[in-house]
Order: sequence, then C-alpha cells, then structure tokens
Amino acid sequence: MSGNAHQAAPVLPVRGRLRPLDLREVRIAGGFWAERQAVNGGATLDHIAYWLEREGWVRNFDLAVDGDLAGERRGREFSDSEIYKFLEAMAWEIGRTNDPDLESRFRALVRRVGAAQEPDGYLNTKFGRPGQEPRWSDLEWGHELYCIGHLVQAAVARARTRPNADDGLLQIACRAADHLCDTFGADGIDSVCGHPVVETALVELARVTGQDRYLTQAAIFVDRRGHGRLSDIEFGREYFQDETPIRQATVLRGHAVRANYLAAGAVDVAVELKDASLLDAVRGQWHQAVTRRTYVTGGQGSRHQDEAFGGDWMLPPDRAYSETCAGIGSVMLAWRLLLADGESRYADLIERTLFNVVSTSPSTDGRSFFYTNTLHRRELGTVPDADRPSLRAAASLRAPWFEVSCCPTNVARTMASLSAYVATCDDEGLQLHQYLPGTIAHRLPDGRERRLVISTDYPHDGEIRVRVDSDDDRPWSLSLRVPDWGVDGATVTVDGATRPVAPGVVTEQRTWRRGDEVVLSLPMVPRFTYPDSRIDAVRGCVAVERGPLVFALESVDVPEVATVDELRIDTSRAPRLVDGRIVVRCRRVRPRDHEWPYRADAAESSPAPVEMFDEVALVPYHAWANRGPSTMRVWIPVDGDLPDDGRARS
Amino acid sequence: MSGNAHQAAPVLPVRGRLRPLDLREVRIAGGFWAERQAVNGGATLDHIAYWLEREGWVRNFDLAVDGDLAGERRGREFSDSEIYKFLEAMAWEIGRTNDPDLESRFRALVRRVGAAQEPDGYLNTKFGRPGQEPRWSDLEWGHELYCIGHLVQAAVARARTRPNADDGLLQIACRAADHLCDTFGADGIDSVCGHPVVETALVELARVTGQDRYLTQAAIFVDRRGHGRLSDIEFGREYFQDETPIRQATVLRGHAVRANYLAAGAVDVAVELKDASLLDAVRGQWHQAVTRRTYVTGGQGSRHQDEAFGGDWMLPPDRAYSETCAGIGSVMLAWRLLLADGESRYADLIERTLFNVVSTSPSTDGRSFFYTNTLHRRELGTVPDADRPSLRAAASLRAPWFEVSCCPTNVARTMASLSAYVATCDDEGLQLHQYLPGTIAHRLPDGRERRLVISTDYPHDGEIRVRVDSDDDRPWSLSLRVPDWGVDGATVTVDGATRPVAPGVVTEQRTWRRGDEVVLSLPMVPRFTYPDSRIDAVRGCVAVERGPLVFALESVDVPEVATVDELRIDTSRAPRLVDGRIVVRCRRVRPRDHEWPYRADAAESSPAPVEMFDEVALVPYHAWANRGPSTMRVWIPVDGDLPDDGRARS
Repeated sequence: MSGNAHQAAPVLPVRGRLRPLDLREVRIAGGFWAERQAVNGGATLDHIAYWLEREGWVRNFDLAVDGDLAGERRGREFSDSEIYKFLEAMAWEIGRTNDPDLESRFRALVRRVGAAQEPDGYLNTKFGRPGQEPRWSDLEWGHELYCIGHLVQAAVARARTRPNADDGLLQIACRAADHLCDTFGADGIDSVCGHPVVETALVELARVTGQDRYLTQAAIFVDRRGHGRLSDIEFGREYFQDETPIRQATVLRGHAVRANYLAAGAVDVAVELKDASLLDAVRGQWHQAVTRRTYVTGGQGSRHQDEAFGGDWMLPPDRAYSETCAGIGSVMLAWRLLLADGESRYADLIERTLFNVVSTSPSTDGRSFFYTNTLHRRELGTVPDADRPSLRAAASLRAPWFEVSCCPTNVARTMASLSAYVATCDDEGLQLHQYLPGTIAHRLPDGRERRLVISTDYPHDGEIRVRVDSDDDRPWSLSLRVPDWGVDGATVTVDGATRPVAPGVVTEQRTWRRGDEVVLSLPMVPRFTYPDSRIDAVRGCVAVERGPLVFALESVDVPEVATVDELRIDTSRAPRLVDGRIVVRCRRVRPRDHEWPYRADAAESSPAPVEMFDEVALVPYHAWANRGPSTMRVWIPVDGDLPDDGRARS
Repeated sequence: MSGNAHQAAPVLPVRGRLRPLDLREVRIAGGFWAERQAVNGGATLDHIAYWLEREGWVRNFDLAVDGDLAGERRGREFSDSEIYKFLEAMAWEIGRTNDPDLESRFRALVRRVGAAQEPDGYLNTKFGRPGQEPRWSDLEWGHELYCIGHLVQAAVARARTRPNADDGLLQIACRAADHLCDTFGADGIDSVCGHPVVETALVELARVTGQDRYLTQAAIFVDRRGHGRLSDIEFGREYFQDETPIRQATVLRGHAVRANYLAAGAVDVAVELKDASLLDAVRGQWHQAVTRRTYVTGGQGSRHQDEAFGGDWMLPPDRAYSETCAGIGSVMLAWRLLLADGESRYADLIERTLFNVVSTSPSTDGRSFFYTNTLHRRELGTVPDADRPSLRAAASLRAPWFEVSCCPTNVARTMASLSAYVATCDDEGLQLHQYLPGTIAHRLPDGRERRLVISTDYPHDGEIRVRVDSDDDRPWSLSLRVPDWGVDGATVTVDGATRPVAPGVVTEQRTWRRGDEVVLSLPMVPRFTYPDSRIDAVRGCVAVERGPLVFALESVDVPEVATVDELRIDTSRAPRLVDGRIVVRCRRVRPRDHEWPYRADAAESSPAPVEMFDEVALVPYHAWANRGPSTMRVWIPVDGDLPDDGRARS
C-alpha cells in the first residue's frame, strides 16, 4: 500500500491506518523547527564531523584497511554506530537541501567505511581482526548487530532520498545484512544483540530491497529475545529485554533506549507479517509505559544505574535520566503506532517529546548537548570542558561531546528528517499531526496533487491556519489533531463558522478549492499541571505548561535566591503571559535547620515565609541552561499550609 | 590515657573526651540485643562459614599454597576481606563467650590464611602470582590495601581479646602491614586504595603494637587522598573521595561505605596526632551528612548507581540504597567522634542506626540479609534463591548470600562486639549511651570496680532502671544519654525525686552506694515524624516512630489492599499502642487512571476515597519482610485535601 519503495521517509509500512508522506512533500518554512533544522544543517553536522575525526572514530575504519587496528583503535565498542548515524543524518539532509558539498563529504565517508568491510560482508572495527576479540564473542555488550542496524538505517535513508546514487552504501549495508542473516538465521547462532535496533533496520531494508530474508531475520530476532539467551548481568536480563518474551511483556522496561528500539522493530515486524497479537502486545506495553513510566516532558528512564525505566510511578525529577536517545526512540515507536492505528494519542506524545526532550538536548548553537535531561537540579551545573569528551550523565551544562556520544548523531538524524513526522495520508485525504508554518504538496498515485499552506506561530500562538492551495473535483478529507493538554477551548473555523472541538482528531471532508481555509485555534493559556497522586516524588508540586511546552523555574531568572529550592509557587494565581514570558507568583521561604532533619513537631519542619515575588518568569524547559550554571525545577512545591500539621488539627 | 593496650575494644584512642570500656565489662543480659547476639553467635557465624567454603573464597588461600590459584580462584577481587571480617567476628565472639569450638575453628582458619602469605609479607589471593595481574596494578578497584585493612582489624580484635594467643594472626597482620608500609611509605608508591579502611586499621595496629610506623602510614594515606591520584572513573573520583582533600571537604560524599571508613580513619589519625584541624574537618563533614544526607532510619547512600551519598536533600525512599555496610561505617565514625567529643548526638545516631539499619539487615534466624535497606517497596519483593548468591541490590527479601557479600560478615563482627558501644568512662565516672538490660563492671586502674545493673525492657518500654552495685567512698558521676527524638517528657528519678530532663546528657555525681538507683523514663508515646521541607521525595508524608524505632506500613498487615500505596494516613488521630502494636488510621483511596498521568485539573489527579481503616497495624522497620513478599512504606502520604486544588482556591 505504500506508494513507492523509494519514497523518502524513515518508515514505510506495507499497511496501516495511515501512510507516511515523502518528507520532501513537507516544507518547514519558519518558526521553531525551521530554526532547529537550520542549526542542525549549518552547525551540528560540522560539529559531529569534527569530533568523529578528532576522537579517531572514523580513523578506525582507515586503520582496518591499513594500520594496526587492534593496537590503535579508539572509542567504545559501539563507536562505529556514530559514523552510521552521521551518515543517516547527512542522507536526510542531502535529501532536504541537495547540498553538493555535503554530498561529496557523504561519499567520501562512505568510501572510508566501505573500505573496511571484510570480504564476507562483516563490518565492525572492534572485533574479529588479529589481536581483537572474535566476532560475536560478546553479544551482551559488543554492539556488533547494533552497529550493523545503524549502517542499514543510513543506507535506507540514502536509498530513499537518492535511489540511483552510485555511492555504494546500500550495497555495503546489504552485504553486511546478508552476512548477518547467514550467521544468525534459523540455523545460525541462536542469540540476539544486547542492544536492539537491527530489528527495525532489517524490516526497512526489506522494504527498500524487496528481500524477504531481512524481514524474516528481524522476526527471528524479535521472537528470540526474552528467553534468557543473553547472560545474566548485574542489572538483570531486563536491561536488554531478554527476561520476558515480547509477546508476554506488559510494559516497556529495562534500558529505555533498548526498550523503545525493540518495540519499534516489533511493530515493524507485526505490521509486515499481519501479526495482530504482537502488535497488541507492544500497544499494551506502550500504554502502560506512557501512563505510568513517563515524565511530563515525555522523557523516559528514571534510573541512572542502568539508564532504565523504573517501576510504575518511579519518576524522580532529580534523578531523572530521560536520556535524549530514549526520547528519540519513543518518537520512533509512537510514530510506528500512529501509522498502524491512526490514534492521536501517539502524535500527542511525539509532540511532547519533540518539544521537551529532543529539542532540549542541543544548545541554541547546535554544538553541545544534554545526554540526560533532568527535571530538577539542586546544585549549579558545571561548565563542561569544551576540549574533551564529557561523562554522559555528569551534572553539567550541555557538553560538546561524550565518551558515549550517541545523542549528537541521534539528534542530528532526527532533526534532518523531522518533516517526516508532520503529516500522513490515507485513502480519504491528509492528516496533520504536528503544527508548524510551511507547505505540504502531496502527489497522489494518479498524479493529482493536494497542497496545503500552513500559517502559524505555533507553539507561541495557538492559531493554525491551513489554506488549501490546490483544486480538486472530488471530495477529500483534511484531518487535524486536537492535542490533549487537558484544557478546554479548542475551536475549528471552516467557512467562517467556528465550533468547539474536543481533543482527538477533527476531520473536514469536502471538495476543497484553492483558497479554502480551516483554522484550528488551540487554547494557549498557561496552565498548572498536576501529577498523578501515585508519583510519590512530586507530591505537593505543580508544573507549568503552555500548549505543548513544559516550563521550568531557573535560578538565573530569580537573582534574589541562591537556589530555586527556596521558592514555592502560589497556585491561587494562575500563570500569566507578561511581555511574552510566563510569570507565576512565588513565595520565598527559609527552611529551618536542625541537628536532625526529621522532627516530631510539624511546625519545625515547615519553612518560614520570607517574601513574595509577584512575577517570577519561567523558561521553556527546552531552553533552560543556556545562560550559564543555574538551579532548576520543573515540579515546583505548592505554597500554603503543609498538607498536615498534626498539632493544628488534632 | 587508655588504660591498657590489650583492653578488648574495637577502638582505643590515646586521648579523647571519653574512653571505651573493655567490652567484657559490659554484659548484655537479655532483650533486643541479647537475642540478636545469640542468633549471631548461634547461627550467623555458622552460616558465614558455610558460604565462605561453599563459594570457594577460603579455598583460594589453599590454592595459593598448593594449586592453580590463577586458574581456579573464585570470588570477586575483595573476597579475601570476607574471611578477615569473619575472623574478626569470631575473635570478638570468642572474647565474649570463650567458646572452645569456635576457638579451634578460628585457629584452623588462621592457619589457612597464614599459609598463603608470601615471604615478603604480601597477602592477597587475587594479585601477584604467575598468571595473575601484578601486585598494586589496580589500586582503583583491586582492593588489596582494603583486604589488608580487614586482616589487620581481625588481628587487632584477636590481640585485644586474647593478648597471648599463639595463633599467629597478629604476626601475619604485622608482616602484611610492614610490607604495606615499605611499599606505600613516603618514598613508596604515591597512591592510595580505591576503598578506604586500611587507615583506621593501621591506627589501631599502632595502638596494639606501639609501632608508630603504622600510624605514620595511616596519616600518609589520609592526606594523599583527594588529589586525583586514582584514575578518573565513570562515577567520578568523588566515588573514592579522591576529588577533594579531606581537610577541604565539607560533607561526606561518594560511595557511602568508603566515605564513612575514610572519615573514621581520619578521626583516628587526628586524635592520635592531636590534629585539631583534621578532626574539625571530619566533624563538619559528619554534621552536614547527618543533617542533609541521611535517611530517617540512619541509613546513608541514596544512589544505586555508585552506592553513594546523593546531593543534599536527595533522599528518595524508593531508591534508597542505605547499604547495611554504610550503616556500620556510620556507627564506626560516630563512635569515634563520640569518644573524641563526648556529645550525645553521636550516640543518638548510633542508636538510630543500630536499631533501624544494622538490625534490619539480618533475618530473625540470622541466615539471610538485606544488602540494601529501601524505605519504600512498591512491588512485592521476590524470594531469593536459597541455593545461590543473590545480586546485592535485587528487589528481593533478605538473601542468604551475595555475589558481593560484605554485609553478613560486617553484621557479624558488629553484633559480636556490640557491647563495646554501650558505655564509656572518663575521669569523673561512667556514661551510658545505649540502653539494654545487663550489667557493667568497670575496673579502675587502682583496682576499684564500679558496677551497675541495668533493668529495662527498652526499646519496648521507656523506663531504664540503673542500680549501683558497688560501694565507693569517693564521689563519681553517672551520666545517662537522653535521646533527642523531638518529644518532651523525659524524666530522671534519683532518690525518689523525679525531675524533667532535656535531650542531651543528664549527670548525677555523688558518692554512690550499692543499691542506689537512677531511673530514666523516656517518653515512648508513638509519634508522627515530619521530614525537612527540603527533602522533596517525601513531601506530604509522615513517618511513625516510637522511641528509637522507625515503623513501617507493610501490606501483609492490610490484607484488604493490593499495595500499601493505596493507603493514606490520617494524622488527625495520633498513632496508638493497641495490644502491643502501633496502629494508625488510614484511608484507602482509589487513584484515577488517565491516558496521560499529568492533568490540568487538580481534581483529576486526586484519588477517590474508598474506605477508612481505623486500626492499621505498623511493624518495626527492622522486622519488615519477615512474613513473605509484601509492599512497604516508611513515609506514608497524609490523607486530606491535596496541598493545593487550584480551582477550589482561586
């Protein structure tokens, strides 16, 4: 059902409720995301190229051809994957911009990668050569299949944006994938990779090449996992989802990136093989994870120790891991479920995660990144060394590079392919999922084109004006997502008639004429957000949101206090927009120090009120930590009486 | 100033505000601690012996003499230390009971250990032999000095309980320590061990032997640390306290066991060398750690990733690490500060930690242990495999053994030497710090004896009756600690006159006659305990305590609920004692499920009230998880209105 195997899109399912557009059919013309795409293409890609060379991770491929790879190899066991994710980012960017310089850099890098491939198709700079550990000798931690997965994803991106390119990347990837299938097929090594990603990559490669063996292999990997084939480790087999078969699991668990990547691959397999029970299982896992194990930002992963989901309701803001790559994995999974099911809740999570996790990672200049995305910093972050890689979970501001540096390349490939996630089509018409100024020009199989011009200052403003820019003599439907932020007041205006709309999807079907307009108005009033009562770590706190943006209280905005932890929010006054910023009323309090911080007298534990600040400005969470070290909180304790003062009430 | 270098006590400072008694001068005659000492001596020591053999950790010493140690060695790099802690536990137990069977087992084990010592004094089964890594090649993780530290502590315990024993353990330890001093002296390897403990051990060895070189070496180690001599690691050098010199640090930080052991060694050095500034520094670090980084149980360490202290106020109950050994380290440190300063707050923390951490670890039968001591379990714990070692931080009930099994031997040596921590003396008289039924018979240098008989059912009852059982013609003072639980009502009765006393120390000086009696009455009314407002993770919650015991809500006591998280506590009714159990009133609530757990409407986040339970029984925290899998919380959310409902107030 997908029109074209070489359509440019990261995911092209053979069936499903909705179909992706070619990402070149969507042009982002300005605003929030256009700025980020421009920074990504103009700065981040160069930044990544610089660090990949500087750290020697590209040179590893050269050493494989001509040098002492075993002796001189640099980087962690998965560093090859960063080169592949960088290739994927460049492929999307070239598809988007046709930049000839980037094209020649892309080809040069592909040549260096390809030169290192061994005659039988195996490709990895860490294993298998004299002086190195044997191939596949460490499936738990070696990341060999993971690296091939990213190689394949790069080749898929290239094949879909430059179907006839002679750079050879697709051939390299196919040779590697063929070798992988030979090695891990039904009669091969009976195990899986410690880090999923090859599953989703193989399905996409099957879609690109029409070769069923890749799909078969992906299905084998999905079903093999969960039976304890990998060794037990200190974190438990849950870490790599090898403790429970995916069809029996009820929730995403373990390492949050691994969990999302695996689930995405399982959806791909399920859709391709019409495996309804597998799709059901993943859908249920997603639902449990989103309702019980996800931060208000959309971030996932609440444990530093193993970069993992915590148990239900275990969502500490101060030890939030919320790894950038887990956010990207969550977008990948939700997008696949959206295509399969068509339900707006998946697009809701994608929006939330893009605005509050994926766009939080890179700095404004696109040259430094958050690896983790905490929701509360009690102490001033440190300024990372600009000249060497940082530890991934250091309590620092954004860092230029990491020893484990998966987020820069992951952000880059996501930003470069962002327009893929904006809209879809089905037999009835077009669906808009994400709002940004731009144009959509979707060509039907019969050659007709449906064109939309979208004008909006979203997310700063809630008015989204969608003008039809093509004529058609047959009716088709235009669907708009109405986000579920929990506030009423959304309206849609068609032909001058305005009516309220509920969260979900609003659809207008008609014989559209050029100049017809649909205006969606979303209520952009700043709001308090209350957590589920089971999330112990933020009891008695509220967050502030406006539209899809989560806001944060950052100490640089309150010079009167040493730390934001001195502030309590007055929820009797709603947050307001003042001069373009959200302001709230906060009371500064002075805690009482004691020799022992647990007191029998409730009053001794209550802080003393000091002063009231009527207008404390908040910052969008994605923009925090761009003005030097500061303390920060997303969840702000509510001012007022303690929930209980035993003496006063008894 | 300490009377006797061979006095039986774990710590014998040369000077200080208070002096230890010989632990044989204190006899525990019944009650809470006598039971635990009996279980320790009657079951735990056998249990440890069984597992040390079974896991091959003792056999490693045999292999060093006659076998393929490099090829067959079992256990982690620090497994030797468990044998040494077991020897120390046996030494104290033999001192306490004179058990001839234990004596012969002790000697047999010493022979096996001693046989593995190399001619130059080096002793370690993991390093230095053909096929093994070289000696001192991995100071960060190798634990070689750490193991020698525990060997020395065992020898010190033996020398002080059997000064003239011919088992040779002291000689083994001295040869190892001499070799260590030769290797790491001022002109030797300029580094330290990744895990402190050798510092405090060397000071004690200097006290036993009169050899200053051990003290000098300890001082070198204390001052060498903190300058980045150890490699940087993913956790940062803070993990082993090597990021900041101890004289400049302001708080305990990093790995909680390492932090406490190092601080204890620094106090030993400071006291011995009259180094007031070093003592000041540690005192300040202790104060900051206790007021800002310690759980209500006395537990320390809030991060699983690196078993470390979190930042100030970072005390999540559900991810509490609160390692048993960190509690023991905290007792070691507080005891040294108590001896140095004489202040009751140190004894307050010791009491809290002994009752709520150290005694929580072992099961009632003394054959299984908590490695970590969480304050909140949301899901049912699992029953560990009785037949193989568990992961140390698994969400399980107490386990018989661990792959890293430091807690069983650490608990055993602490329980066996427990009477050392009960009382002290100074030139004025005797001080009682911990309350238990028993006798004290303290012999003065001139041969006179001061005897006390203590009758109490503490901590079940708050009356502590101290009867003088000796005559003296000169006045001396008897001091009793009045614990600082934050409740008024303590009284002391002397000669039939009762008067109120404040937390701290109450001292009676007189010419005591046999039969004189002092009665301390402590208010044992069950109480709610409120956390400092800066501890975000337990906002809106209370704990319940009685005397020194922290209580817990355990689901086995509320069969009506699926999990304790359905319960909220009604703080308008004080906790009560009913039939010997503490009961509280709790409301069962039903949370509201939503597709997204963060709502703009506060009411949607509030749970619905279901029913009220007038008498929910709590369990002492130390006794939880002895009745099968259950959920548990120490901090219980307070019933009542949400701290804020924006709609209702605005």
